[in-house]
Amino acid sequence: MTGITTAVPQPEAGLVDGVVVQRFRIGPLALETGGHLPDVVLAYETWGTLNADASNAVLIEHALTGSSHVARGESSEDGWWDGLVGPGRTIDTNRYFVVSINMLGGCYGSTGPASLDPEGKPWGSRFPFVTIRDSVRAEALLADLLGISSWHSVLGGSMGGARALEWAVTYPGRVQRCAVIACGAASTAEQIAFAQAQVQAIRLDPRFTGGDYYGSAGPEDGLGLARRIAHITYRSEAELVHRFGRAAQGMEEPFGSSVPGGRGRYQVESYLDHQAEKLVRRFDANSYVILTEALMSHDVARDRGSLSTALAAASAEFFVAAVDSDRLYWPRQSVELASALPGNVAVHTIESPIGHDAFLTEIAQLEPALAAAFYSNTDDGDVKESASALRLRAG
Amino acid sequence: MTGITTAVPQPEAGLVDGVVVQRFRIGPLALETGGHLPDVVLAYETWGTLNADASNAVLIEHALTGSSHVARGESSEDGWWDGLVGPGRTIDTNRYFVVSINMLGGCYGSTGPASLDPEGKPWGSRFPFVTIRDSVRAEALLADLLGISSWHSVLGGSMGGARALEWAVTYPGRVQRCAVIACGAASTAEQIAFAQAQVQAIRLDPRFTGGDYYGSAGPEDGLGLARRIAHITYRSEAELVHRFGRAAQGMEEPFGSSVPGGRGRYQVESYLDHQAEKLVRRFDANSYVILTEALMSHDVARDRGSLSTALAAASAEFFVAAVDSDRLYWPRQSVELASALPGNVAVHTIESPIGHDAFLTEIAQLEPALAAAFYSNTDDGDVKESASALRLRAG
Repeated sequence: MTGITTAVPQPEAGLVDGVVVQRFRIGPLALETGGHLPDVVLAYETWGTLNADASNAVLIEHALTGSSHVARGESSEDGWWDGLVGPGRTIDTNRYFVVSINMLGGCYGSTGPASLDPEGKPWGSRFPFVTIRDSVRAEALLADLLGISSWHSVLGGSMGGARALEWAVTYPGRVQRCAVIACGAASTAEQIAFAQAQVQAIRLDPRFTGGDYYGSAGPEDGLGLARRIAHITYRSEAELVHRFGRAAQGMEEPFGSSVPGGRGRYQVESYLDHQAEKLVRRFDANSYVILTEALMSHDVARDRGSLSTALAAASAEFFVAAVDSDRLYWPRQSVELASALPGNVAVHTIESPIGHDAFLTEIAQLEPALAAAFYSNTDDGDVKESASALRLRAG
Repeated sequence: MTGITTAVPQPEAGLVDGVVVQRFRIGPLALETGGHLPDVVLAYETWGTLNADASNAVLIEHALTGSSHVARGESSEDGWWDGLVGPGRTIDTNRYFVVSINMLGGCYGSTGPASLDPEGKPWGSRFPFVTIRDSVRAEALLADLLGISSWHSVLGGSMGGARALEWAVTYPGRVQRCAVIACGAASTAEQIAFAQAQVQAIRLDPRFTGGDYYGSAGPEDGLGLARRIAHITYRSEAELVHRFGRAAQGMEEPFGSSVPGGRGRYQVESYLDHQAEKLVRRFDANSYVILTEALMSHDVARDRGSLSTALAAASAEFFVAAVDSDRLYWPRQSVELASALPGNVAVHTIESPIGHDAFLTEIAQLEPALAAAFYSNTDDGDVKESASALRLRAG
C-alpha cells in the first residue's frame, strides 16, 4: 500500500493467483466477539460500470474456498460462475456493475492469517476469530468507499449464501434483492460436526505448528485431509458410486498387497487425492480454519430473537434455491429459511445427481428464474435491450 | 500360550478389557493377497453348550470396532447385542451354542498389529494386509478346532454382516442360515472414501510413526479424528440436528472469542469428542487401520464372477435387513444384495431416526422376524419349550 498520498482513499491493484484484483484499505475493524484488526484490506473484483446513481451494483459472494473471481472478465482464468455473469449473460455486465469481495480472513487478497500484522509478521495463530457478520460489516465499509449505498442485489451459494443472507438482515436498507442458494439460516449440527473434523485434520498435521508455519512447509497433508472430508460431503453418494464404483486407479492394486503399506488406491481415493492436491496448491490452511469456523458460526438469528423476527428486519426481495441431492446443505434447510422469510418465498430447485457442488456446476438451471425475479426490470429498458441484442449476436 | 503340551490343541483363557475370552492357536495362515502370518491366535467367547451332534452352533460376527462380547453372559460387562442373545432370548443360549470371534487383525485378543511376531516384537507397521475373506478362513480353522462343521446360523451387522456373507459364500456347506444386517455385497465408493479419510487421519498423527508406536504414546488424536468422521456417518443428519442443534456445550462459548484459538465447543463437537475419547481408550490405531482397509476390500463377488454367480454358490437361507435412515450402509445396498441372492429374499427394515447405529441399538425390532425365520425350529421341541418356560418365568 505504498504511494497512496491522495486525500481520497484509492484501491490499488494486485495480482492474486494470476488474477488482477483491487485491494482497498478499509481501516481498523472491531469484531463481533471482541477481537480487533487494526488495518483491514479487502480484495475484490468488478465487472461492468457503476451507473450515475449507483443503482446497478450487484454483489456476488463466494463460498468457503472460493475467491472474488466469479467471472473470467478480461483475465484468462475461468470464473466460478462464468455462465451466469458476463456481457449478455443473466447478470449482464453491460448493464450491471458486479462486485465480488474476498471474505475477511481469506487468502485471495483480503486481510487474513497470512497477512502481515503492524509489526510486519504474519498473523498466523494470532489471527482473531471472525464471523460471517464480521465480514459483511467489513464489506459494507468497502461498499461505502465504492460509493454503493444500496445493492441492486446480493447473491451467493453455500457460504456465499450465508454472507448474502447476513447482508440482507444486517443492512436492510442496503440490499434490495437477495439470493440465497444452497444454504440455510444457520449452520446445523451436522455441518458443524463435519467442519470440526476438517479443522482438527489441519491442527493434527505436525506442520501446522499452531498456525505459525509461514516460511516453512505448511500443513499440506492436514489441509488435504480436510478437503477430502469436505469434498465427500459436497458430492452425493449416488454420484461417487456411479462414477467410481470399486474400480482401481489405473494399474494400482487397491485390494491389498503382501507388502505392508503397499496397498494401491481405488479410483475414488485417487479422485479425492486429486481434489486435495488442487486445494493445497491454492489455499492457505489458516484461512481454511478461520473461514470454516466463521461458517460454523453462521446463524442469521444470533442476538436477533427468533428466526422469523430476525428475518422480518430484512426488506429485500428474496430468492431461495436448493440442490435436490444436496446432503450437506439439505433442501429442507432452504425450505425452512423460505418459510421464515417475510412474504411468500418459493424454493427453487437445481435438479442434479451430484449433490451440493451443483450450486456451482448447474447454476444455469436457476437462470430463467433468477432473470425473471431480479434481472428483467423494465426500468432500465435501453440497457436491457442492448444486452438482448448482444445475446442475439453472440448466439 | 505357555504350558500347552497336550496332543489335542486346547484354547486358553485370557482377560481382554475385563472380559474373559478363550484364545485358540490356529497356526500359520496364508493370506489372500500373498502375505503370511506364521502363528495366528483367534480370541472368542461362547455362550451355551454345543450339543452332541454339533448342530446348534450360532456364529455372531462383530462390526469394525466391536469385540467378541456380544452378550453379558457371566461377565459384568454389557454385550453389544445383549437383548438378542441370552437365556430365553431370541437366540436362546439355553438352546444354542453361541460363538463370537474377534476378527483377525483386531485388538480384542486375536492376532493383530499389537501382537508379537516370532521374534517377540509387536508387528506394528509390518502387519500384513488382511481381507474379510482372510478372517473368515481363519475363523473356519477355529470352527474345526471347536468341532463345528456347520453353523446353524451366522449373523452380523455392518462389518459383521460382511463377515457373515463371506462365510456363506466361502463355505456354502458350513452355513445353514445367514443374516446380513446393515451391509451390502461390497463396500461402495462412498464407504471407501470415508474410510480413506479415517485411515489418513491416523497416519497424519505424528505419533503414528508408520505404525510402530508401541511402547510410547500412540496416535490418539488421529484415531480420535477417525472415530469422529466415522461416527458422523453412523448417525443420521436428522438425529444430530434434533439432539444438538446449535447449542453450546455447558458454559462454553462456541461462537468465538477474541482470544485466538479460544473458541468453545458446540454440543455436537463435545459429543464427538466424547465418542473419540471412548474409542481411543479401548482400541488400537493399527487395528483400526487394518480392519478399515479389510472392510474397504469387502466384495463378496471378488474373483467369483458376477454378484449373482458368486451368491449362487451359497446354500444358506438368507435374512437381509437394513436401517431405514442409514446413510452409510444405504438400504438400497441391502435391496441389491437381496435381489442378487438365490430365491426370494425379503429385506427387513429397522425403523429408526438415528442411522446406521440402529443395527446395534434397535436390533430388537428384528427379533420377531429373525425368530420366525431362523430360531423357531420345531425339530428341537424340548429345548424350545424350556426356553419359552424360562421366558414366562422371567416375564
